[in-house]
Amino acid sequence: MAKINPHYAEVSENYMFADVVRRARAFADAHPDVEILRLAIGNTTMPLVPAVVDGLKDSVEKLARAETYTGYGDEQGNTRLREAIARRYAERGIAIDASEVFVSDGAKPDCANILSIFSDESVVAISDPVYPVYRDASVMSGRRVVLMDAVAENGFVPAPPSEHADIIFLCSPNNPTGAVATREQLKEFIDYALAHKAVLVFDAAYSEYIRDTSFPKSIYEIEGAKWCAIEIQSFSKSAGFTGVRLGWSVVPKTLIAEDAAEGVLNQYWNRRQSTMFNGASNIAQEGGLAALSPEGDRQTHEQVDYYMENARIIREGLANAGFTLFGGTNAPYIWLKCPAGRSSWQFFDELLEKAHVVTTPGSGFGKNGEGYMRVSAFGHRENIEAAVHSIVANIQL
Amino acid sequence: MAKINPHYAEVSENYMFADVVRRARAFADAHPDVEILRLAIGNTTMPLVPAVVDGLKDSVEKLARAETYTGYGDEQGNTRLREAIARRYAERGIAIDASEVFVSDGAKPDCANILSIFSDESVVAISDPVYPVYRDASVMSGRRVVLMDAVAENGFVPAPPSEHADIIFLCSPNNPTGAVATREQLKEFIDYALAHKAVLVFDAAYSEYIRDTSFPKSIYEIEGAKWCAIEIQSFSKSAGFTGVRLGWSVVPKTLIAEDAAEGVLNQYWNRRQSTMFNGASNIAQEGGLAALSPEGDRQTHEQVDYYMENARIIREGLANAGFTLFGGTNAPYIWLKCPAGRSSWQFFDELLEKAHVVTTPGSGFGKNGEGYMRVSAFGHRENIEAAVHSIVANIQL
Repeated sequence: MAKINPHYAEVSENYMFADVVRRARAFADAHPDVEILRLAIGNTTMPLVPAVVDGLKDSVEKLARAETYTGYGDEQGNTRLREAIARRYAERGIAIDASEVFVSDGAKPDCANILSIFSDESVVAISDPVYPVYRDASVMSGRRVVLMDAVAENGFVPAPPSEHADIIFLCSPNNPTGAVATREQLKEFIDYALAHKAVLVFDAAYSEYIRDTSFPKSIYEIEGAKWCAIEIQSFSKSAGFTGVRLGWSVVPKTLIAEDAAEGVLNQYWNRRQSTMFNGASNIAQEGGLAALSPEGDRQTHEQVDYYMENARIIREGLANAGFTLFGGTNAPYIWLKCPAGRSSWQFFDELLEKAHVVTTPGSGFGKNGEGYMRVSAFGHRENIEAAVHSIVANIQL
Repeated sequence: MAKINPHYAEVSENYMFADVVRRARAFADAHPDVEILRLAIGNTTMPLVPAVVDGLKDSVEKLARAETYTGYGDEQGNTRLREAIARRYAERGIAIDASEVFVSDGAKPDCANILSIFSDESVVAISDPVYPVYRDASVMSGRRVVLMDAVAENGFVPAPPSEHADIIFLCSPNNPTGAVATREQLKEFIDYALAHKAVLVFDAAYSEYIRDTSFPKSIYEIEGAKWCAIEIQSFSKSAGFTGVRLGWSVVPKTLIAEDAAEGVLNQYWNRRQSTMFNGASNIAQEGGLAALSPEGDRQTHEQVDYYMENARIIREGLANAGFTLFGGTNAPYIWLKCPAGRSSWQFFDELLEKAHVVTTPGSGFGKNGEGYMRVSAFGHRENIEAAVHSIVANIQL
């Protein structure tokens, strides 16, 4: 008798995003003449930049001709792309070998699948509030989860866990809070990981939103990280690849776990990807190469600037009106404190009903998210401006 | 201290494919003037058909414009594609709802990842010889594996396992043997699964190579399958998407496991994909839609015909020369018996040295593969013809 995985039932279905959509739709249905303004989109909205479009088209053209057609590629990714990613690190003073770079179909699958190379008995530390994938993937694979509080008192950057953990997920710049860890804060995590022989899984999907160069974009800017940290990265938010699907993980050969020799975790991830994955789409990979070209780099940087200008408009507009908010200076998310003790869902409804603006309730990301809203800078400028204007005009503090 | 997954060490690294490449390269280096002919490619070689190329280009064009750009899609796949796949089943008299179809980045990841929804205690049955992914993914997740012999006596289609199994992997048309299960043979598996409350995972990636319509293309042509079978499918071999990456799984809502209610396995796979996957590339999905269009269907069918004509040339050429072989009539693989008791690797070396032809040793797929070679019909016509001619001219039975 085929038994089901008992741990799937331990994940409480998170209805938050579905609830957001449902409530917004109900309001729209009841008020068909009202324009709904969205600040809830954790998703890119700008078209792919020209350099990437050219790269994708060239790739399709190659697949259309017998002389240039290619089938299966290496599961670890196109060698040129792995080398281009390694060069990107080198340009930032970080020595990563192309054999330590594994191209994937995005950061989310890697964040979940990386657990497979570790024992089921591993204790996993995650922050609260948190991007739900780290928690859900850990629970669904039967692993115990401990929480690290990310609250106003620590600027929404948690301290390392107070109890023992084997695997620690950290996302900086953070989704949902927009907080960015300093060099010193990251050093604390590296010190913890080295002391506990733990592995830090660093989700750097939003690194290109860092404009203040005193913040590290990569965990490998921190001394000791190559012995204890895996970095997961994405083209989604830096180049608009949310739907195209492309990311990578760095699993250094120097990484240590248990008594396993150096190189074992790199080999294990290689084995995981070779066995259970068949490479990212070759079309997406050519797009990724184009995004990393000098022209692609310039164009995608401009696109990130556009979203960051959106973030500035939201921050300044709401702060000037007296709202308390965090993040949004080196991240596309603003963490807005609900005024006057309102709960996340209370304020969600108020913003929807009075300002016709959809946001994301912070409580959906964990207990510490209660009383906050995630406000997203992804969107078209006119919509962002209209939403801010509407909040300022219609919401009383 | 982060502990590694102890089961990864239980998978013996399969050096077979690497060995094939290494020996072929060594021979080529030693004989730089000799042209090496390849019958070892488990990979498509023909360019994408025009309808698919147009679909892919249109998709890139949409992503290049603000009005038509899309980011994250549904993790389960584009609704139009799920519906098109359901319609394809309907055209073949099979009632599958679009909500039972989950689009993925290919059959290989799905074959490995599907295990996640079942208990780690599940016993997994696989055939011997076997496509290595079922075995390796099972072992790496700590599951016990039992073997079903696929040998000449049963036409290389195994009987259901003699002992209890919870999950059974079956691939038909088969990689590596090219054997195709009859309706009656599949019925035996369905009867076994229903009796044992086991789940049959049916890998139908080569179904479009079935030309003899008496063989089922889908497990759902067999009565009772919707209560006990998951079907995994791919655009790789039917439409040349090996590098583009696109496939799907059907997880019927009627599927039963343990005491879980109907619908639970469908929900669990939905949860697995929603949590640990972020959808197949939107570009690849548009290509898949184009492949399923009437024009795409006609063009891809012709492409499969081309490979099947290659298979006929190999079969007839070698059979006429006195070789014993199986498969290749409804599958792109021919299972060639090594003449005069030679081992797989002995015959590999002989074919390479005397005929300059690279094939795949059957022993790399399991103990029952010893004494056989997998000969692939993927390749360009002139190369296939030259390889057959060279074997016939240079190898003594």
